[in-house]
Amino acid sequence: MSKAAIDPRVAESFARQGLMRHLDAQLLEAQEGRCTIEVAAGAGLTQQHGFFHAGVTAAIGDTSGGYAAMTLMPPDASVLTIEFKINLIAPADGERLRACARVLRQGRTITTVAVRVEAMKGGRSIHELLGTMIAYRGQEER
Amino acid sequence: MSKAAIDPRVAESFARQGLMRHLDAQLLEAQEGRCTIEVAAGAGLTQQHGFFHAGVTAAIGDTSGGYAAMTLMPPDASVLTIEFKINLIAPADGERLRACARVLRQGRTITTVAVRVEAMKGGRSIHELLGTMIAYRGQEER
Amino acid sequence: MSKAAIDPRVAESFARQGLMRHLDAQLLEAQEGRCTIEVAAGAGLTQQHGFFHAGVTAAIGDTSGGYAAMTLMPPDASVLTIEFKINLIAPADGERLRACARVLRQGRTITTVAVRVEAMKGGRSIHELLGTMIAYRGQEER
Amino acid sequence: MSKAAIDPRVAESFARQGLMRHLDAQLLEAQEGRCTIEVAAGAGLTQQHGFFHAGVTAAIGDTSGGYAAMTLMPPDASVLTIEFKINLIAPADGERLRACARVLRQGRTITTVAVRVEAMKGGRSIHELLGTMIAYRGQEER
Repeated sequence: MSKAAIDPRVAESFARQGLMRHLDAQLLEAQEGRCTIEVAAGAGLTQQHGFFHAGVTAAIGDTSGGYAAMTLMPPDASVLTIEFKINLIAPADGERLRACARVLRQGRTITTVAVRVEAMKGGRSIHELLGTMIAYRGQEER
Repeated sequence: MSKAAIDPRVAESFARQGLMRHLDAQLLEAQEGRCTIEVAAGAGLTQQHGFFHAGVTAAIGDTSGGYAAMTLMPPDASVLTIEFKINLIAPADGERLRACARVLRQGRTITTVAVRVEAMKGGRSIHELLGTMIAYRGQEER
Repeated sequence: MSKAAIDPRVAESFARQGLMRHLDAQLLEAQEGRCTIEVAAGAGLTQQHGFFHAGVTAAIGDTSGGYAAMTLMPPDASVLTIEFKINLIAPADGERLRACARVLRQGRTITTVAVRVEAMKGGRSIHELLGTMIAYRGQEER
Repeated sequence: MSKAAIDPRVAESFARQGLMRHLDAQLLEAQEGRCTIEVAAGAGLTQQHGFFHAGVTAAIGDTSGGYAAMTLMPPDASVLTIEFKINLIAPADGERLRACARVLRQGRTITTVAVRVEAMKGGRSIHELLGTMIAYRGQEER
């Protein structure tokens, strides 16, 4: 697979996320336990000082984490987030915001992911997200 | 103050948040260490199964937490989020999503908040957010 | 059941925790989705300023959370912690440290718990823990 | 400085932590934004299945994180933990448990740290801790 391949299951699920469309988020990669999602700065994504809102960090961070997990799951499994935590290490000041997720450990039920969210300008500003995803089959069963 | 009063500093800051406008979020209360923010369900707020996206939970949860902290801060202080964690206890399936934040402890520098985010339909679905806010004066100094 | 009843499965499991013995922790209650554990202050439990160490907060907080979850699980299930987060809201200065856990939501696989850890003196100092437990049967299967 | 140097301020503070003595923890390194602490397996450190207790992970994880932050702070500053989160990615089964902390970002007031805690046997079992420390001078002022 090329470096920026996109798992078709992820592409299909991503396309159904109304919020990702509303934020104009782009799915850049989804394969082999990794996923990258990016948004461009815009008037609809800011907090009160004009930086990217933490909700945008959370939205693309959580989505990339879930899809990184999905790339390693069986074809009939779906993914739900159990919890995540974000440390907002510096203000997200930049032209684009990019979330790069990777699976730390894939279990049969539980997958743990880490996500780095970076505001692209100097690249100095980073947010760290550490989260837990669950695989489920058929009906919601957590 | 009436039960649903809104601190004017919070109202002014909220109005400058592009994301809150983009999500059509409403500020319902902000006073005395509490803040409530609500959004109505809509095509732009969903994840892949049609529920509210965790990014929306995070966006209104974080914003309400920060403003609950701000209501107790000195007039010249501003507020930034250091970190937050969300447990997605059940799928956020409902007509509206409401975040109710309260300050657990206000320190000179650090304020700790807890937020309950509920999908309004049966009221069963709740998310819990526990976060840390910092007060700062003048320039960014964390 | 009386207000301070102890589920026999929890009592048996607690007795096998070497760390709880090493910290001289007492199991005060374990029933119906709640669990309370307490330690008395002592030279072996301090951080550098003489307060209870955050590791002690975590140890009794996590243990009480896990056992609160266990009281609601089927007889053949065991419990493991997936993750937890602690906000150290104030220094844990007191004669005893008490963790009171309650289940926020019990799912088939995932149980979410909240724990309040209080240093008993003035009762002012509190730590909040929010965590996720998983039920498993037979072999470790997460 | 050699690879395993220990900041004398950290050594002095570590020696005053009653819990670190009680767990027989060893300070292996503390310099330049990093800190490593290790414990050997023993009857007093177990949970109910005989693995290292999550409280031990938290204790050495939090302590190493705080001291990693301290190595970068001014001489008159002390360090307190605001909050941390641990993901218990796999059971901590091993002969020793080692916490390796590094500073992600040092601010004037707030320092963010990441800690990897590994059970040394196969090296497979890891816990990830993401936490926030605060510098303070003189009296407790958070």
